[in-house]
Amino acid sequence: MKGIDNYEHVVQYYETDQMGIVHHSNYIRWFEEARIYYFDKIGLGYKQMEEQGIISPVVAVSAKYKVSAKFYDTAEIDIKFTRYTGVRLFVSYEVKNKDTGDIFCTGESEHCFVSPEGGILSVKRAFPEVSAILEGYVEKE
Amino acid sequence: MKGIDNYEHVVQYYETDQMGIVHHSNYIRWFEEARIYYFDKIGLGYKQMEEQGIISPVVAVSAKYKVSAKFYDTAEIDIKFTRYTGVRLFVSYEVKNKDTGDIFCTGESEHCFVSPEGGILSVKRAFPEVSAILEGYVEKE
Amino acid sequence: MKGIDNYEHVVQYYETDQMGIVHHSNYIRWFEEARIYYFDKIGLGYKQMEEQGIISPVVAVSAKYKVSAKFYDTAEIDIKFTRYTGVRLFVSYEVKNKDTGDIFCTGESEHCFVSPEGGILSVKRAFPEVSAILEGYVEKE
Amino acid sequence: MKGIDNYEHVVQYYETDQMGIVHHSNYIRWFEEARIYYFDKIGLGYKQMEEQGIISPVVAVSAKYKVSAKFYDTAEIDIKFTRYTGVRLFVSYEVKNKDTGDIFCTGESEHCFVSPEGGILSVKRAFPEVSAILEGYVEKE
Repeated sequence: MKGIDNYEHVVQYYETDQMGIVHHSNYIRWFEEARIYYFDKIGLGYKQMEEQGIISPVVAVSAKYKVSAKFYDTAEIDIKFTRYTGVRLFVSYEVKNKDTGDIFCTGESEHCFVSPEGGILSVKRAFPEVSAILEGYVEKE
Repeated sequence: MKGIDNYEHVVQYYETDQMGIVHHSNYIRWFEEARIYYFDKIGLGYKQMEEQGIISPVVAVSAKYKVSAKFYDTAEIDIKFTRYTGVRLFVSYEVKNKDTGDIFCTGESEHCFVSPEGGILSVKRAFPEVSAILEGYVEKE
Repeated sequence: MKGIDNYEHVVQYYETDQMGIVHHSNYIRWFEEARIYYFDKIGLGYKQMEEQGIISPVVAVSAKYKVSAKFYDTAEIDIKFTRYTGVRLFVSYEVKNKDTGDIFCTGESEHCFVSPEGGILSVKRAFPEVSAILEGYVEKE
Repeated sequence: MKGIDNYEHVVQYYETDQMGIVHHSNYIRWFEEARIYYFDKIGLGYKQMEEQGIISPVVAVSAKYKVSAKFYDTAEIDIKFTRYTGVRLFVSYEVKNKDTGDIFCTGESEHCFVSPEGGILSVKRAFPEVSAILEGYVEKE
């Protein structure tokens, strides 16, 4: 994300499987780790968002696997807000090997926003300051 | 899958997150559970496949989340082979609440086949019997 | 547990690590799976307990690893209530290979009881019926 | 560990459960994360050890839970080698809240050493340099 240090994740032993590589489900977790990190950096800490009454569940997620990450590799994860409609946010991910630059995985996720009671939120209407921040970080791909 | 009992997964406590629902990454794991189960049922046990020298890594995966699964719900997971090219297999998933019929999640995955040494395999050429089974289970959506 | 079918868990692919065996942290999760299952069977469903206002956090847990479980092994998990004081419950676990009888792992856990607000509960005083059930299942080792 | 910066782990969303706290099984994983980190720092990188032909499976593990870690807390994990016999290593853990100093969890683990073929290794005899390093870091509790 422009102006923010890339998020890094060191591959843990418990994330490997018997193929000797990272189990593919873990990348979905790394997407979340990175998303939370960048939200925090742009002033929208996940914890604070939840306390404020904005929860942003994952509506859809996808991943494409390229080179397999291995134990103790350092993964560098960059994200982009590719689209934001006021009620939906679309995020793309690039996970690469910090040392070699190899792409481990790319992906996308789609998010809505709900109140703690579960009602769909228009962030645009209900939280204009939050909305402005999200809008400001949208980058066309 | 036609003629095979649906795979069932009882939601575990450790699969929930602080939103009080199943963490979205777990559905990707349930896709795998179901895939392994159905492969086994059609005579292509994952373990046996690996011993025989066929490994089928996940090339891509996607999920769309609908109703949230909760602790101790029983999820019923059905899969379909939607396309098989001899070198690639495409699988779709439907995860639903066994009791209510609510759809928790749908998804898709794409698989290639590799030898233990990592070389891409044409299952069609190298393992015609396996290939015939896969082909026989393809259902157009 | 006396009079109850043993809990079974089929080892999943995502539970293996690059040593080709089940990652040791998963047995702690299986302990929980089994505990929840047996509680349910003796009329103390975890979900119902929580709804009633009894949460039983894990205070301590330990595991001793013997033979390594492998992918698609069926693990059979038996538990015992070894001690119950009215405010604390001690549970022991035996995880074995259903087919060979090999012991994968043994373990113990200690539980207290708290209200949803977090206060320590004397189950003996606050929930005598629940307490009687727990007491009835205590087996000395 | 004397002379080494404490290992830190930021609590991830997927590590929480519906009680709103870190699921207890994750601490066992953090023990491993910390162990691998400190091994690396003292010149016994896990990866290098495995390449050299020394694998150190967990023989036993235990944890005592105190204050519950929450989402986005930073956990600081210190370890100690409490005993080393040449064939077995005993490690203790202290996991605390970096900001408040609250103890989240303490624990212990016991390790043996095996060759890639699975044979028990006397590190003392087979790898005297590795053995000397381990011995040098033993601290009585």
